[in-house]
Amino acid sequence: MPGHFTFYSDKIENNVAYFSEQETKHAILVLRYKIGDLIEFTSGDGIYYFGKIVEIQKKSFLASVESFKELPQRNFVLAVGILKSSDRMEWLVEKCSEIGVKQLVFLKSQNGERSKINIEKLKKTAIAAMKQSHSAWLMDIQEDSFENAINRNQENKYIAYCNSDIAQSHPLKFGDDSIVFIGPEGDFSLSEIDLAKSHGFQVIGLGSQILRTETAAIVCASWSLS
Amino acid sequence: MPGHFTFYSDKIENNVAYFSEQETKHAILVLRYKIGDLIEFTSGDGIYYFGKIVEIQKKSFLASVESFKELPQRNFVLAVGILKSSDRMEWLVEKCSEIGVKQLVFLKSQNGERSKINIEKLKKTAIAAMKQSHSAWLMDIQEDSFENAINRNQENKYIAYCNSDIAQSHPLKFGDDSIVFIGPEGDFSLSEIDLAKSHGFQVIGLGSQILRTETAAIVCASWSLS
Repeated sequence: MPGHFTFYSDKIENNVAYFSEQETKHAILVLRYKIGDLIEFTSGDGIYYFGKIVEIQKKSFLASVESFKELPQRNFVLAVGILKSSDRMEWLVEKCSEIGVKQLVFLKSQNGERSKINIEKLKKTAIAAMKQSHSAWLMDIQEDSFENAINRNQENKYIAYCNSDIAQSHPLKFGDDSIVFIGPEGDFSLSEIDLAKSHGFQVIGLGSQILRTETAAIVCASWSLS
Repeated sequence: MPGHFTFYSDKIENNVAYFSEQETKHAILVLRYKIGDLIEFTSGDGIYYFGKIVEIQKKSFLASVESFKELPQRNFVLAVGILKSSDRMEWLVEKCSEIGVKQLVFLKSQNGERSKINIEKLKKTAIAAMKQSHSAWLMDIQEDSFENAINRNQENKYIAYCNSDIAQSHPLKFGDDSIVFIGPEGDFSLSEIDLAKSHGFQVIGLGSQILRTETAAIVCASWSLS
């Protein structure tokens, strides 16, 4: 009997879960699960299932739902300037997923990189991280403009800014219903800061250290944990 | 005149800083610094120097010390189980350096990986991260056994443990004079937890999420920031 794994199913209907070719490779060929074996899975919607393998085909397998538990959802959103390095974006997605960020928005901002973002590839990384940490919430990944993103209606809105003259000190902990904006390597422009303030954002500093964009994002994600 | 860079010198004597072949390549060949140019540098001992380039040789250059500032040192130490992936260790070193961890100890523990650690390579990563974040403190990197490491005398000692029956909740913030132990993928053994407790360590959990070793380490490093 294999060890403790969580599998991803994008189709769970009438108490039957269907698994993709990739999940089938891992479960059946690599881990050698057999019919009747107990298996844990989720589709990333907050429900963690316990089931039994009932059918194995060449490129897919099916599991029955025996029981399930609902995992509480957190409501912490990070909006981060697009990075030059796709590796660092991959890494950011993995870490935010593990920590339990609800949504990660890659921001097109004035001083930001113009890199193309492969949302599909990043979503695969988020699924892998969700499985790895036995979670049942798949982090949502989006790309959005700064002007759109500031219209979101979280209760607590923060925007990080390096200019310590403007920035107030950060709270020790972000309330759960919070959104935090992290600038690109070139930081936000003053007009973006003013626009955010006019939308109820509090300008915060992240301490004396100079952090890379993805590091600042992880630090803020960590401050959302309780 | 090039942009804002911090260079590393491992020899500063009588108000003259000497730079390695690698730093010379970067400063003179890539960034095209010239004699008389202003330059910022550190040797990682907490002093951030402002100087002028006074001599350029083929494989080295010299700068005069014109002024300097001392940066406050923090005293937060992380002791982390050795990871299987050297990439993840590299990454951990970069992030801990940026956040300002004083010392990162890679722990040889009972359930840990037996991977070989290339301290010299990791130190290069720490130097690059220090330069990148314009800091003047070079993070110290060590390898140590669990049994030795628990004898360190920080004021606040914490050991993270996944078993929530034993672990108490974590403090929202680690005082500066703290050491935090993070287990390997296989977590600490019960005997290690007991040994740590007998040495004044407080057993803490890191929340409901299941975090990779390096993620747990970064989360704790973030909680050391104020």
